[in-house]
Amino acid sequence: MARDERGVTAQSEDFAAWYNEVVFKAALVDRGPAKGTMVIRPYGYRLWELVQSALDRRIRDTGHENAYFPLLIPESYLNREADHVEGFSPELAVVTHAGGKQLDESLVVRPTSETIIGEMMARWIGSHRDLPLLLNQWANAVRWELRPRMLLRTTEFLWQEAHTAHADEADARRETMLGLRIYQEIARDLAAMPVIAGEKTPGERFAGAVETYTIEAMMRDGRALQSGTSHYMGTNFARVFDIRFTGETGRDELCHTTSWGMTTRMIGAVVMTHGDDRGLVLPPRLAPYQVVIVPITRGGDTAVDEAAERLARRLRAAGVRTHVDARTQVTPGFKYNEWELRGVPIRLELGPRDLAAGTVVLVPRLGDDGKRAVPIDSLPEAMPGILDEFQAYLLTRATDFRDEHTRTVDTWADFADAVATGWALALHCGAPDCEQDIKSTTTATPRCVPLDGEPATGSCVRCGAPSAYGKRVVFGRAY
Amino acid sequence: MARDERGVTAQSEDFAAWYNEVVFKAALVDRGPAKGTMVIRPYGYRLWELVQSALDRRIRDTGHENAYFPLLIPESYLNREADHVEGFSPELAVVTHAGGKQLDESLVVRPTSETIIGEMMARWIGSHRDLPLLLNQWANAVRWELRPRMLLRTTEFLWQEAHTAHADEADARRETMLGLRIYQEIARDLAAMPVIAGEKTPGERFAGAVETYTIEAMMRDGRALQSGTSHYMGTNFARVFDIRFTGETGRDELCHTTSWGMTTRMIGAVVMTHGDDRGLVLPPRLAPYQVVIVPITRGGDTAVDEAAERLARRLRAAGVRTHVDARTQVTPGFKYNEWELRGVPIRLELGPRDLAAGTVVLVPRLGDDGKRAVPIDSLPEAMPGILDEFQAYLLTRATDFRDEHTRTVDTWADFADAVATGWALALHCGAPDCEQDIKSTTTATPRCVPLDGEPATGSCVRCGAPSAYGKRVVFGRAY
Repeated sequence: MARDERGVTAQSEDFAAWYNEVVFKAALVDRGPAKGTMVIRPYGYRLWELVQSALDRRIRDTGHENAYFPLLIPESYLNREADHVEGFSPELAVVTHAGGKQLDESLVVRPTSETIIGEMMARWIGSHRDLPLLLNQWANAVRWELRPRMLLRTTEFLWQEAHTAHADEADARRETMLGLRIYQEIARDLAAMPVIAGEKTPGERFAGAVETYTIEAMMRDGRALQSGTSHYMGTNFARVFDIRFTGETGRDELCHTTSWGMTTRMIGAVVMTHGDDRGLVLPPRLAPYQVVIVPITRGGDTAVDEAAERLARRLRAAGVRTHVDARTQVTPGFKYNEWELRGVPIRLELGPRDLAAGTVVLVPRLGDDGKRAVPIDSLPEAMPGILDEFQAYLLTRATDFRDEHTRTVDTWADFADAVATGWALALHCGAPDCEQDIKSTTTATPRCVPLDGEPATGSCVRCGAPSAYGKRVVFGRAY
Repeated sequence: MARDERGVTAQSEDFAAWYNEVVFKAALVDRGPAKGTMVIRPYGYRLWELVQSALDRRIRDTGHENAYFPLLIPESYLNREADHVEGFSPELAVVTHAGGKQLDESLVVRPTSETIIGEMMARWIGSHRDLPLLLNQWANAVRWELRPRMLLRTTEFLWQEAHTAHADEADARRETMLGLRIYQEIARDLAAMPVIAGEKTPGERFAGAVETYTIEAMMRDGRALQSGTSHYMGTNFARVFDIRFTGETGRDELCHTTSWGMTTRMIGAVVMTHGDDRGLVLPPRLAPYQVVIVPITRGGDTAVDEAAERLARRLRAAGVRTHVDARTQVTPGFKYNEWELRGVPIRLELGPRDLAAGTVVLVPRLGDDGKRAVPIDSLPEAMPGILDEFQAYLLTRATDFRDEHTRTVDTWADFADAVATGWALALHCGAPDCEQDIKSTTTATPRCVPLDGEPATGSCVRCGAPSAYGKRVVFGRAY
């Protein structure tokens, strides 16, 4: 990376430009050759692996089993559920030729796997003893995007998609909420993102679902990012794929199914939740390197280099992901800028004078006032706590930011004002036309009806008709 | 699974039928709807995850970084390397339509990623300081197969593909052998498969490679299964994708590249290396359940059920993957058969009399003579050792089997005889025509020129011309 490539546009100047510069310059991703495709580079992929391993553990611990289903799905499968095909048709990539011949039936590259997993569930489920059937898949999926954006909306993305079948509605609804709760916890505990969990309005539902739940996060430009969704399908897919079971009384019944997914979009969410004008700011639990040590040597001071390596070994032994930047062809100042751009939570600067004093200069990625000299020997024991504090600080900061940019509004003027810079909590009539009208006027959409919202009724903020949902709705412009 | 579905065809009667029955009945896989596609069911996927985690650790420990590259590759990329396109063209699945429109340029679903990763390497590599570039990807790949077989040759498979770029030939060759050695160790230490590592003859090389190395395993029907390959590409891909670097002296040079891959075929290899007429036999290190406890209760003996659960908890705490089969709707005998079919290494039978005596009946999956009563309290400490013994026994048994079915031959009659039931170690002239002649006559192919083969020269076993390679070649019929 050349010196002059380090600077990034200020967020306040052009947030979209800032985002694009940061994800490329921090080496999270690169552009693929086919339209809207993305390469996830090692630094970005490590972040995803850290999401994966925590999420996979929670999914297993709650009784789900991983499996793998084919990428290529007969086109006719998609057509079976009317809403599903309508929702996904415009986004499909279609294999028409294979093995040098035109196929009798075209195959779609999976945009999501409800149909093919539904078909298999029908084969595997016989009696009530086979239920619940709790499956999860880690895979790629392809949806042809008109306006692709790195990590947020790419033609191909990676994700986890859970698909479950249940004996009754109550159990399937419990599962739907379990998926949502797992996402809320992963967002909060891992990504330091204070998301709002709630239900989508009918116009924003997953194609084929009875109900869709979402976690919505606020980015630093005030926009919302849907960061994980969980769907209760009722018996819609069970009916068309014939997912049935023999109940305890011997009766033949339809299963109730659910699905829930979280994608590589989460990496984009982390970038836009915590980043600043100097680049990425990574929550320690997702940082590929939690600590970078920069030895400050003039003319090959091996004592300093060795001390840096020794400290790194001790930090690693304490469970801290540590990198020593021992490059000789760039200056310490260059390294500082680069690791700030790449969002490393804690930088340690170690020069000959520090070494003589038995200290190291600790610089947290946020707030230069945190810069301080600390005894080298105390670091392995202290670092996990320092990282926890940094993690907690990010969550508090993001929560404060979100709260400052969320307003309870009762007039249209206030509404328009609120969604220009953040979110509006407003009463709404629930009419699709009125939703559409709000969207065309302000580009804001209903993000969700928050699960923990206070009961509230009154008049629609836009049209004045009686409000629906029994509580306020979160509106915002969204990615 | 109904009672009458348990029996499987004897291996000696029809090995192919045995294999097909076992992989389905043991619930490793199911058939996908599109030709040659496969569903990997939870039991089979867990096996793959155990391969993955061990292999991933070795790949990381040797300095490689994981990344992710697009599934869809412009068709023109494949065409750049002449051998590569010739090798892969017949197997490509092609996306011609996306987003409701015909694409200007068709996209192929990756059959392998040399081309797209080569394109990115060219973008990322500037100077010698960027080398070696050691990348690895966990992904799916699609190759249209004319004669698909579950796990062994499926239209879509999962794999790990490492792709690396180096400053010179020596370093790239070192890397090629490193990949091969990792595979050899994974096969031996994890899958208890005593593979032969060697070089492919020119006719069996990867399309576009200068040299291809392989590990070859012997299945219980005497056939060979290529279980992992590592390729030295020379500068073939560097030339067409322009993967260049500025050397220390300032000169512009081409990189030398390698690639190496191991796939879900490994699961099929384990099935055919260790299985017997009762079904799967899983090496403990790859077994989703290493121990299954079958409580033998008549009319709900809660003391036995509780003791089984207690023992399971203690075994799990000792690091043993343990399952309690507490189903009430099937008999203990049914469970024994089912877990034998599914290859669980150790079964523990626990009835009221055992419990009273403080013992449990231990039955290893191989050899009923190993059946014995053991004190319950000794098991958590003893079990890891028992599993290690079982693992070692499988490797010894497979090595003996292979050696008994491998013959050093110097006449054509002996050759034909040897490859009818196993492998032949023979001198060969190296001529492609002669290789082809052997194949049409016996269906046997040269599997590899073993790396550790003794020096040997003489006359070709088929045509009598002077032998090539300086050592004997392994010939065998292959999957």
